[in-house]
Amino acid sequence: MHAIVIEDKKLALREVPDPVPAEGEVVVDVTAAGVNRADVSQRQGFYPPPPGASAYPGLECAGVISAIGPGVSGHHVGERVSALLSGGGYAQRVAVPAGQLLPVPTGLSLHEAAALPEVSCTVWSNSVDRDRLRKGKTFLVHGGGSGIGTFAIQLGHALGATVITTARASKHDRLRELGADLCIDYTTDDFVSATKDFTDGAGVDVVLDIVGAKYLARNVEALAPNGRITVIGMQGGRKAELDLGLLMAKRGSISSTSLRARPLADKARIVSAVARDVWPLVEAGAIKPIIHTTMPLAEAAEAHSLMESSDHLGKILLLP
Amino acid sequence: MHAIVIEDKKLALREVPDPVPAEGEVVVDVTAAGVNRADVSQRQGFYPPPPGASAYPGLECAGVISAIGPGVSGHHVGERVSALLSGGGYAQRVAVPAGQLLPVPTGLSLHEAAALPEVSCTVWSNSVDRDRLRKGKTFLVHGGGSGIGTFAIQLGHALGATVITTARASKHDRLRELGADLCIDYTTDDFVSATKDFTDGAGVDVVLDIVGAKYLARNVEALAPNGRITVIGMQGGRKAELDLGLLMAKRGSISSTSLRARPLADKARIVSAVARDVWPLVEAGAIKPIIHTTMPLAEAAEAHSLMESSDHLGKILLLP
Repeated sequence: MHAIVIEDKKLALREVPDPVPAEGEVVVDVTAAGVNRADVSQRQGFYPPPPGASAYPGLECAGVISAIGPGVSGHHVGERVSALLSGGGYAQRVAVPAGQLLPVPTGLSLHEAAALPEVSCTVWSNSVDRDRLRKGKTFLVHGGGSGIGTFAIQLGHALGATVITTARASKHDRLRELGADLCIDYTTDDFVSATKDFTDGAGVDVVLDIVGAKYLARNVEALAPNGRITVIGMQGGRKAELDLGLLMAKRGSISSTSLRARPLADKARIVSAVARDVWPLVEAGAIKPIIHTTMPLAEAAEAHSLMESSDHLGKILLLP
Repeated sequence: MHAIVIEDKKLALREVPDPVPAEGEVVVDVTAAGVNRADVSQRQGFYPPPPGASAYPGLECAGVISAIGPGVSGHHVGERVSALLSGGGYAQRVAVPAGQLLPVPTGLSLHEAAALPEVSCTVWSNSVDRDRLRKGKTFLVHGGGSGIGTFAIQLGHALGATVITTARASKHDRLRELGADLCIDYTTDDFVSATKDFTDGAGVDVVLDIVGAKYLARNVEALAPNGRITVIGMQGGRKAELDLGLLMAKRGSISSTSLRARPLADKARIVSAVARDVWPLVEAGAIKPIIHTTMPLAEAAEAHSLMESSDHLGKILLLP
């Protein structure tokens, strides 16, 4: 089969052996694969695949099951699925633990379904499951124009939270349509004073951050009492000063996670909760897959350049 | 009545007006009051009472109800109680919201009962309720010889956790008797390498820290995957560099809280959970109040000097 491999920090299309399903796995013929910021980090050498994961990039896909490994029940060849991957999505075929398969939400194409697994599992596990995003809470989403951002805005809005997001001004109209109550242009405005003004000084309950060090102190400042911050990306560096005294005054917490390194059982739990809690919102139209563009698999390098430019709004998909 | 007041960062015994119970409050005639590190911070001007709290220090006591305010049911004059306070324990009488009253555990004296409210509510709300300390987890308790420390060691042990603590070597024998599986002399040994050695490299699941900035980086290093740190004191400073990349690699979290500033409803929830989950362990003898010494109320200044010396092991109580 064809797959994208990483050679000298560059992406290249190569002929590679087909994957063979191990115990508990199925093989999916990939119709579309999502591109994630983490794939860019992996290409740059900062985010090596965990032990046992495919060496090829790609953390999510949708397609059709073409082979079933030993010990898998409840799935069949020919079934349309989407999947959370530990790697290997940039390929014609990928082996997936059965616990990481998701149904294709009713009414969605396989392209649309490929845009959802990574963002929905990431936002649900962090902001909803651990940080208790609920109706009535205030949710600050950094990088609202990203795949994660466009999903988080819609999920927060669908749950009945007030959603505040940071993004370039050119993206604000679209993000308001998705449910953002306040859009802050981070290139010109301070998000701490903007969130404080908008919330009458109360601050925000849940923060989902992709910037890291550069925003840490300001994220703590922006918190309401009992507020929770999750850092899922470090585009602004990894080391920063933390004022524990201010964190205590807020009774706040800071977590940082990545989905990929979690144990299989954790991922299966998250995937099944997403199917239960998030897919109905997708099927009801409250959350739409936001696709910026689709590109042939062979153009993966161009897809990464586009992601690094941050000119996109929503997901970038590769089509093998 | 007599109470200890703070004048120019010093404690002085003064004649002051008796407290009057407001709506939802009772007045307790104080038999014994616990001394806490937070009282020292308050005296030094770093920890002002929250709005509506007594200006006198003292965050816990035990005694006998002498008056019942409007809107209180289920309590009576003459009832023996212990109580979590927002202040005012260093006095002959104190007004307390009824939701912050705890029964005196069966078999305990009022002196013993005065040693438990603050430590049990603090450790339960942070390490058990939020950080999920359970059977089979590994629990790192910094400052094992403190009131908080001696309680946390016993609670961790009673729940079936493996307990590791840092303390001066002179306190180790006593802390092992209380249930510590490993005692680390922080004056000579690095707690990160000692915990890694003891856990075969796994690290610790839950950290309860009173040191703050000085230990932040090392607490993150000591974490197991999904580990959680709570900072409840900052004897080692409040600002420190945080490596979010390392926190992400651990999928860790850092929280900081204080009990005193929480809303009344929060405190009442914690107090009732402590009565339900912790008091049975006290009544079964699995957790004992560890009292270093009792001193007359008039010697509150000496009690603070003793606490600041860190020569004590367990609680210091004042007797009005």
